[in-house]
Amino acid sequence: MNIATKLSVPFRGIITPMITPLLNDETIDIENLGRLINHLVEGGVHGIFILGTTGEGASLSYKLKHELARLTCKYVNGRVPVFVGITDSSLQESISLAKTAESAGASAVVAALPYYFSLGQQEIKTYFTNLADRVALPLFIYNIPSQTKMMIEAETVKSLASHPQIFGIKDSSGSAPYFNTLLYLMKDDKSFSILVGPDEMMASTVLMGGDGGVNSGSNLFPKLFVDLYNAAASGDLSQVLNLQEKVMAMSAKIYQIEKSGASFLKGLKIALYLSGLCSYTMASPLARYEDKEIAVIKENLLYLNKIICS
Amino acid sequence: MNIATKLSVPFRGIITPMITPLLNDETIDIENLGRLINHLVEGGVHGIFILGTTGEGASLSYKLKHELARLTCKYVNGRVPVFVGITDSSLQESISLAKTAESAGASAVVAALPYYFSLGQQEIKTYFTNLADRVALPLFIYNIPSQTKMMIEAETVKSLASHPQIFGIKDSSGSAPYFNTLLYLMKDDKSFSILVGPDEMMASTVLMGGDGGVNSGSNLFPKLFVDLYNAAASGDLSQVLNLQEKVMAMSAKIYQIEKSGASFLKGLKIALYLSGLCSYTMASPLARYEDKEIAVIKENLLYLNKIICS
Amino acid sequence: MNIATKLSVPFRGIITPMITPLLNDETIDIENLGRLINHLVEGGVHGIFILGTTGEGASLSYKLKHELARLTCKYVNGRVPVFVGITDSSLQESISLAKTAESAGASAVVAALPYYFSLGQQEIKTYFTNLADRVALPLFIYNIPSQTKMMIEAETVKSLASHPQIFGIKDSSGSAPYFNTLLYLMKDDKSFSILVGPDEMMASTVLMGGDGGVNSGSNLFPKLFVDLYNAAASGDLSQVLNLQEKVMAMSAKIYQIEKSGASFLKGLKIALYLSGLCSYTMASPLARYEDKEIAVIKENLLYLNKIICS
Amino acid sequence: MNIATKLSVPFRGIITPMITPLLNDETIDIENLGRLINHLVEGGVHGIFILGTTGEGASLSYKLKHELARLTCKYVNGRVPVFVGITDSSLQESISLAKTAESAGASAVVAALPYYFSLGQQEIKTYFTNLADRVALPLFIYNIPSQTKMMIEAETVKSLASHPQIFGIKDSSGSAPYFNTLLYLMKDDKSFSILVGPDEMMASTVLMGGDGGVNSGSNLFPKLFVDLYNAAASGDLSQVLNLQEKVMAMSAKIYQIEKSGASFLKGLKIALYLSGLCSYTMASPLARYEDKEIAVIKENLLYLNKIICS
Repeated sequence: MNIATKLSVPFRGIITPMITPLLNDETIDIENLGRLINHLVEGGVHGIFILGTTGEGASLSYKLKHELARLTCKYVNGRVPVFVGITDSSLQESISLAKTAESAGASAVVAALPYYFSLGQQEIKTYFTNLADRVALPLFIYNIPSQTKMMIEAETVKSLASHPQIFGIKDSSGSAPYFNTLLYLMKDDKSFSILVGPDEMMASTVLMGGDGGVNSGSNLFPKLFVDLYNAAASGDLSQVLNLQEKVMAMSAKIYQIEKSGASFLKGLKIALYLSGLCSYTMASPLARYEDKEIAVIKENLLYLNKIICS
Repeated sequence: MNIATKLSVPFRGIITPMITPLLNDETIDIENLGRLINHLVEGGVHGIFILGTTGEGASLSYKLKHELARLTCKYVNGRVPVFVGITDSSLQESISLAKTAESAGASAVVAALPYYFSLGQQEIKTYFTNLADRVALPLFIYNIPSQTKMMIEAETVKSLASHPQIFGIKDSSGSAPYFNTLLYLMKDDKSFSILVGPDEMMASTVLMGGDGGVNSGSNLFPKLFVDLYNAAASGDLSQVLNLQEKVMAMSAKIYQIEKSGASFLKGLKIALYLSGLCSYTMASPLARYEDKEIAVIKENLLYLNKIICS
Repeated sequence: MNIATKLSVPFRGIITPMITPLLNDETIDIENLGRLINHLVEGGVHGIFILGTTGEGASLSYKLKHELARLTCKYVNGRVPVFVGITDSSLQESISLAKTAESAGASAVVAALPYYFSLGQQEIKTYFTNLADRVALPLFIYNIPSQTKMMIEAETVKSLASHPQIFGIKDSSGSAPYFNTLLYLMKDDKSFSILVGPDEMMASTVLMGGDGGVNSGSNLFPKLFVDLYNAAASGDLSQVLNLQEKVMAMSAKIYQIEKSGASFLKGLKIALYLSGLCSYTMASPLARYEDKEIAVIKENLLYLNKIICS
Repeated sequence: MNIATKLSVPFRGIITPMITPLLNDETIDIENLGRLINHLVEGGVHGIFILGTTGEGASLSYKLKHELARLTCKYVNGRVPVFVGITDSSLQESISLAKTAESAGASAVVAALPYYFSLGQQEIKTYFTNLADRVALPLFIYNIPSQTKMMIEAETVKSLASHPQIFGIKDSSGSAPYFNTLLYLMKDDKSFSILVGPDEMMASTVLMGGDGGVNSGSNLFPKLFVDLYNAAASGDLSQVLNLQEKVMAMSAKIYQIEKSGASFLKGLKIALYLSGLCSYTMASPLARYEDKEIAVIKENLLYLNKIICS
């Protein structure tokens, strides 16, 4: 039987949006899955989020998604809460995946907007309300306009926060004015968790009152992100600046090898491959980097390991 | 056994992007499905395309998509070719749906880009090549930047057209310079079908050499679109202008009741409901119009029936 | 004294959005200005439009803009109507330029939206009404969302068309559904001129009832565009298809040398330079093509001259 | 004779992007100009920036822009540095305004990209280099993609920073990952000033190492922004959180009365009018709020004055 870890409320800390180790489009790389999960748990992260953007959730088949939810919960085995991404353009499929998550022992589900039709704020509100009404696990809203091409307005979030099933938001917009508006609007509801996506802004949002980060880089350097979160949460500014520079070095040297929107993900998967934590296979439609980029990342990784892990 | 109609090459004429009659998110309205199909076939359309944007394909569960493919082929029963939309953010699911389409007796499949990650033109080319390599039915490319937020460049289309499995393109960009560039680049390959999406520009593209339209309005007024196509294909300009005005009246009075991106679809589904051809249920996340808009459409429909069908 | 040519209403035909021959950022190339104007008038164009996008109007100093208006009217000398672009982010400067246009003998002024602040449709309506109230010459609205990042909605155009000073619209959106909606909404006001920007769609819009084109390519091949306009206006479909292919060849071989938004303009200016009709200088911030691209265009131009002018 | 205040390098602190007090489109409200300048200087701001977005620079005539530069320098009279916005779609006009700024006694000039043509990063680099080569005062780059629709990439900024005439950047993108990338790339060049636009993120950027803010709200509450800047610069986190909440209250209650892009500016101008610091006139194409919104802002201002100034 799988064990669900009850969420602390508000949920605070570092959640790793786990990459999906793949042998090919249809097959999970089970060996590396276990290895990666252990790496994260031992690195001290406060939760693991699967099937997000970093997890290439949208690219995976249904069969594989359900299987990954079960396997992750099994391997995590209650050591940290598991958050399962249930984003889908079909509400029915989101609900179906939420059921699997629940039975597998996940602690929460996470949903971005269905990413085909453009919706107004009222339709967005209705959508998340319908979803929250029909899932048993705590639901986190996921704002990621770079992919969905829609912004969940701060007032919409505030309105949704009163739903008993909605526990927080992951904001990957990268907009600091938006994030600070969320903090301001929700200042009287301390049970609602406000988490940030982009690695580069986690520390500053926590300094300003945010609850933590769902940061891709914590796949590679979990302890760095946990330490930075702790420094920010405890107001240790000089440690924040010290560790922030390492996060920025990682961003510059792993995420920005080329200029496509998925460059962070392509770089990250190669860095994890080079670190012995996953195969380099990406699910269609993304293509993995070729030898040339791999060589660059290999060298950059040596530098990063030196400045971060020493 | 279901009967596949062999496609004429290049495929020319009016393909109806069929709306999906629903009782609720999980249930096809089978009675109206049969009725609507008969309405289309009797209206003279040259093909039926299911699970496109107008068919709310992205919003439906997998089970329902596969079921709709089977039911449509069964009810059409070889009277016109059936095109099955296999657009999905997961390549595996597209392939799976293509297999169902094939076994059900469809004549072709249609795929837009996976609509989560932003892709470059090389990744777009690789994606469609991978897909074409793995489907048995003729594949039509579907360019719909309003939903996918990516444009399949004309040079990319030209390159893909040489794939033996790729038979044509449906362009829903609305851009006349782009469409005319497709016609120019493909002028020496008359076997490749270049079809247009927006109802309002079908006639002008056929006058300029286009192969026809995949027009939502033909759900409601199939004969109007077939007549307009025939007028344009035969160069009867005065008849084109006469019928074009009726198409524009329909666009103004059914599609533009409000300003959201899905207003055409909401209006169309209500007009079909009022015409006794489907229930008014929409799949989440879209919400059907309320009584106020329904009353407006009802009155507009009386006017349209008068000017179009008399 | 300068001579204004009274506009026919609705204005129909081909207006050349003239490039601005420059010696440098601050100096008009007067010799080529006269030569280019003669080339256009002798090519049969129905009007000349200066200081549009093709004329790099936004990049020129105020002094140079006013001077160009005066010089163009002088050199045209009443042979065809002169349209002066008065687009500016400052209403006062638009009005000031309209006054110069009037005193110089221009026939009309043309204004896109002020291109700094994002405006709603009501603000757009107010803006053009304010402007029309304060200019003495006929005003043409210029819809160019690629530059202004705002669409003047069809209903807004219809409302503005009732202003006695507003004579027509140039639509450079490239959207055929939008253009056809304009034609439909204005079908009962035949005095309002609906002109199209992109060269590639002029013929089809005229076939559908449009009044003509403001087409950059007519700088280079004025007679081609005039002939195509005449073929379309008279419903000679086979001649339309014959000439359209030449226009598309020009678009492919001059406008699409690279993929930037200004590639059409860079290519056009080089082609005119190679044709002895202007210097190749562009105003900052655009940079002219280098030798490599010039060599490509030179070869393409030989081909085009052969297929177009023979 | 006007007095220029020499800039400290790097420039740090709060610069007010001053609104332009107007009697009408053509006339500066001189009385309020003096009153507003005194309000800002007495509030302790470290600089005054005229003719930015908040100053409606793009909407003003050339005559008025030059006049405002002279009048502001005269009234400031060396008490704080004056920064003059020279953004223009024409390079020549930017240079001309920079000359007036210099002779009037301004300390620096500020330029966003020319906002008509879309430019690549190389063209952006060339543009700013050309401009910097031709102005005598220190030049600050202004990144404001909401208006120019172009992002000045962080690598481009780094490259431009080596130009001896380029002293810093004002980033109004609102993107925290971008801002932190700037800080990281420029970490070894402490002479380059990195300032932030949006009020809501000033404090967090200064905590992370930013040099200060160019914040619209400091027109209304200069002391609040100066105090917040000082708290952040000195690492006084609890004071930062205390004052940040007041800034967010102002943002919620003045800037977000409606949802247009210029709502912050419309709200701010009314709040300043109600505070006796300017007339409520806006330059075309923006329209001032009507009585209904003014009443809301009046009430909100009472609340804000209570929580901020007590």
